[in-house]
Amino acid sequence: MFKKNIFALALATLFGSSSVCAVENVDLLIKNATVLTMNDEKTIFQHGLVAIDGNHIVAVSDGSNLSQYSADKTIDADGDIVMPGLINSHTHVSMTVFRSLADDVPDRLHRYIFPLEKKMVSRDMVRIGAQLGNVEMVKGGVTTYGDMYYFEDEVAKTVDKIGMRAVLGETVIKFPVADAANADEGIQYAVDFIKQWKGHPRITPAFAPHAPYTNTTNALKKVTQLSEKYDVPVLIHLAESHRENEVIAKRSHGKTPVGYMEEIGALTPRLVGAHMINVNDEDITLLKKRGVGIAHNMSANIKSAKGVSPALKMFDNGLRIGLGTDGPMSGNTLSTIDEFNQVAKVHKLVNKDRGAMPPIKVIEMATMGAARALHMEDKIGSLEVGKLADVIIVDTKSPNMTPVYNPYSALVYSAYASNVKHTIVDGRILMKDRKMLTVDEASIRDEALAFAAKVRKTVIDSGEVVR
Amino acid sequence: MFKKNIFALALATLFGSSSVCAVENVDLLIKNATVLTMNDEKTIFQHGLVAIDGNHIVAVSDGSNLSQYSADKTIDADGDIVMPGLINSHTHVSMTVFRSLADDVPDRLHRYIFPLEKKMVSRDMVRIGAQLGNVEMVKGGVTTYGDMYYFEDEVAKTVDKIGMRAVLGETVIKFPVADAANADEGIQYAVDFIKQWKGHPRITPAFAPHAPYTNTTNALKKVTQLSEKYDVPVLIHLAESHRENEVIAKRSHGKTPVGYMEEIGALTPRLVGAHMINVNDEDITLLKKRGVGIAHNMSANIKSAKGVSPALKMFDNGLRIGLGTDGPMSGNTLSTIDEFNQVAKVHKLVNKDRGAMPPIKVIEMATMGAARALHMEDKIGSLEVGKLADVIIVDTKSPNMTPVYNPYSALVYSAYASNVKHTIVDGRILMKDRKMLTVDEASIRDEALAFAAKVRKTVIDSGEVVR
Repeated sequence: MFKKNIFALALATLFGSSSVCAVENVDLLIKNATVLTMNDEKTIFQHGLVAIDGNHIVAVSDGSNLSQYSADKTIDADGDIVMPGLINSHTHVSMTVFRSLADDVPDRLHRYIFPLEKKMVSRDMVRIGAQLGNVEMVKGGVTTYGDMYYFEDEVAKTVDKIGMRAVLGETVIKFPVADAANADEGIQYAVDFIKQWKGHPRITPAFAPHAPYTNTTNALKKVTQLSEKYDVPVLIHLAESHRENEVIAKRSHGKTPVGYMEEIGALTPRLVGAHMINVNDEDITLLKKRGVGIAHNMSANIKSAKGVSPALKMFDNGLRIGLGTDGPMSGNTLSTIDEFNQVAKVHKLVNKDRGAMPPIKVIEMATMGAARALHMEDKIGSLEVGKLADVIIVDTKSPNMTPVYNPYSALVYSAYASNVKHTIVDGRILMKDRKMLTVDEASIRDEALAFAAKVRKTVIDSGEVVR
Repeated sequence: MFKKNIFALALATLFGSSSVCAVENVDLLIKNATVLTMNDEKTIFQHGLVAIDGNHIVAVSDGSNLSQYSADKTIDADGDIVMPGLINSHTHVSMTVFRSLADDVPDRLHRYIFPLEKKMVSRDMVRIGAQLGNVEMVKGGVTTYGDMYYFEDEVAKTVDKIGMRAVLGETVIKFPVADAANADEGIQYAVDFIKQWKGHPRITPAFAPHAPYTNTTNALKKVTQLSEKYDVPVLIHLAESHRENEVIAKRSHGKTPVGYMEEIGALTPRLVGAHMINVNDEDITLLKKRGVGIAHNMSANIKSAKGVSPALKMFDNGLRIGLGTDGPMSGNTLSTIDEFNQVAKVHKLVNKDRGAMPPIKVIEMATMGAARALHMEDKIGSLEVGKLADVIIVDTKSPNMTPVYNPYSALVYSAYASNVKHTIVDGRILMKDRKMLTVDEASIRDEALAFAAKVRKTVIDSGEVVR
């Protein structure tokens, strides 16, 4: 992992002295940074450094050992915040091409979104939407995300190309959708997808049963078994709506959605449940016991007036919980930074306590918390030696970020996603000075606009789908 | 107001024909825009134009008459959103230099902010903080704001220089503060300030009694009388906290803060009340009857866990209500765009109705609503012929703003303050392509950072004020 500097080694050999420091050459050195490590001690280094070699972090320090490193590339952070890449634990990235359609329609999923998807979802749409959404996330400092949608192999190709990291779940649902006529076909599609992408260094393929109430007990059991067989995660919407509670209660003699999942053996450490709004204390105990991951999507949950998840309670109880944006028809943006303000403040409001959900907890839920939710906490979520090099640099020069007495506060209460200056995933710089390096942003935008024109023609101008 | 094109006039004279269209020369022409007029009919023009001559709007149209205009300067909006400048109806702009200090301390105003201000507020601090805050607002598309602080003449000088529009209230409060030993001195300072700045084309000086509970009845009455005499607004914090309710109830035989203000004759059309969280239906009727302006500060109110103002009810009942950010120790940013998401979503949450507070109402509260709150609706708040030329252009090319099926939705659910591309106040371009034209942003930032270093030394490193 380390390429020793030949000259330093020669010197050390020449003088036979162990006190001569070997200069270590690394691929990328970030210096003069306000480093938020997000390690267990929440260490912050002023004027700190982060050294990256290959796709790993090889040093994080207060900068006093700066002279010990030489680097192929050096970024002088000039006091800016350097922190772990943000992890968006739940989204539907391809839906960017539908963003701002019919935002506040009642019963929107069933009355608007499912009909819209029946008409418009295609392999092309998934690719075009994923491209745009991936660019949005990289530009907003998201380095890893969890996704649930159709034609997920197209999302995988996009993630591979742009250089992000992702857990990608292929949808299983009981009614006909764009890439499967029924749940069995959906499961088969998912299995093929998993076989194709398993082992990719940055992509984790997964099953994504849509929700308990949109799947049969048999399908959910089958997915659980296959997730063991293929050793992959299961992403699901869980405990999201009152309607779901009613359907599941009828099906399971009064159980909650979480209780039902436990009963059928589907509550496993592979599971990542999105939303988790309607959970009681017994559910929380179960979720902790089973090591289930949780994606907390504040912005989408309050926009749809579904309520506020007891996310703070779950976090404080040591559950695996991270932030998610939900899809761009719900959130409506894909950068976790856009959630910060709402997560911090709405939990204060509902708990009637201005001390509730302080900024440091929000930042933990956006980094280590989300890493735990996706069961990737050994690899990502903090800046520590040996972890994968997913790192972002957040500008502190713009007026909204001036001054910074407390970096957690500044990030949560003041930062825009557009304050992210550089984004590094797996040791590779994907965005530098707000410019995408791995893909052509303009042509991705043009493709999205061309598709949006089709959407406009089909579902707005024609009036086929209620606006 | 119109400078006729000589050549066109000559042609018309030559041919003696009234059917020859005179080409009208204007100072600034914005073309090819998605124009949100925010007029009563909420007219939207695709490929529209806005023509500005001097400091007034002289045309707003669907663009079909584009050839009728020649212009000294032309901005091709290339489909971007052109809309009225945003109006931040309540802030304390100079407090930018304290941003991110001790954010979630209990009883923060009394335990932290007042002691901090006693130690740090000076003429210099007010100037330095105002500079930074004005830049932040211009860059976030705010063209007019309402301010309450000390040494307000320093804020006025900054507003004058940068080219913004503002209603600036000099604080009156019963205990010793940086620029007055007591309320009488504060009133005298305010009167001097008002005499000095009254009549400025962009600045409206005002009284700013801090709140009913931090002033005596006598002081409040005196301010009310003087506001009539000098024909100026009165800005105040009103119905903000339970503590205030208790103090005022004791003072007034059980009245609410609004009821008390009515009783002492202080509820007038000159009054602009910030927050208005604890108001009952009787209060709302009174506020409407008296034509009181209201500043709704969602972000600050939920951050402090004070609760949610019945702002939607007041808006729907036709009250004069607009959005405000509150000061940067509360909000913590100064761009009204940062409020949009929270205003739209938290009202849905508390009303348990995803259809509540749709984007179009949020945008109205940020423009015409706030203009009404400041009693300036005849001059600003919409793009209509004869109004003052306060206009912003919002980029729709960045990933978070792609695509735009509904511009109100895109602005409320997706836009960042940093998506504002150009800001025009009084016909003058203050920001172009994100670059400030009237002041040097870098030196303003340097001054703010130098002051922040003093703050850090005085109140953090010394431990004098509890962090």
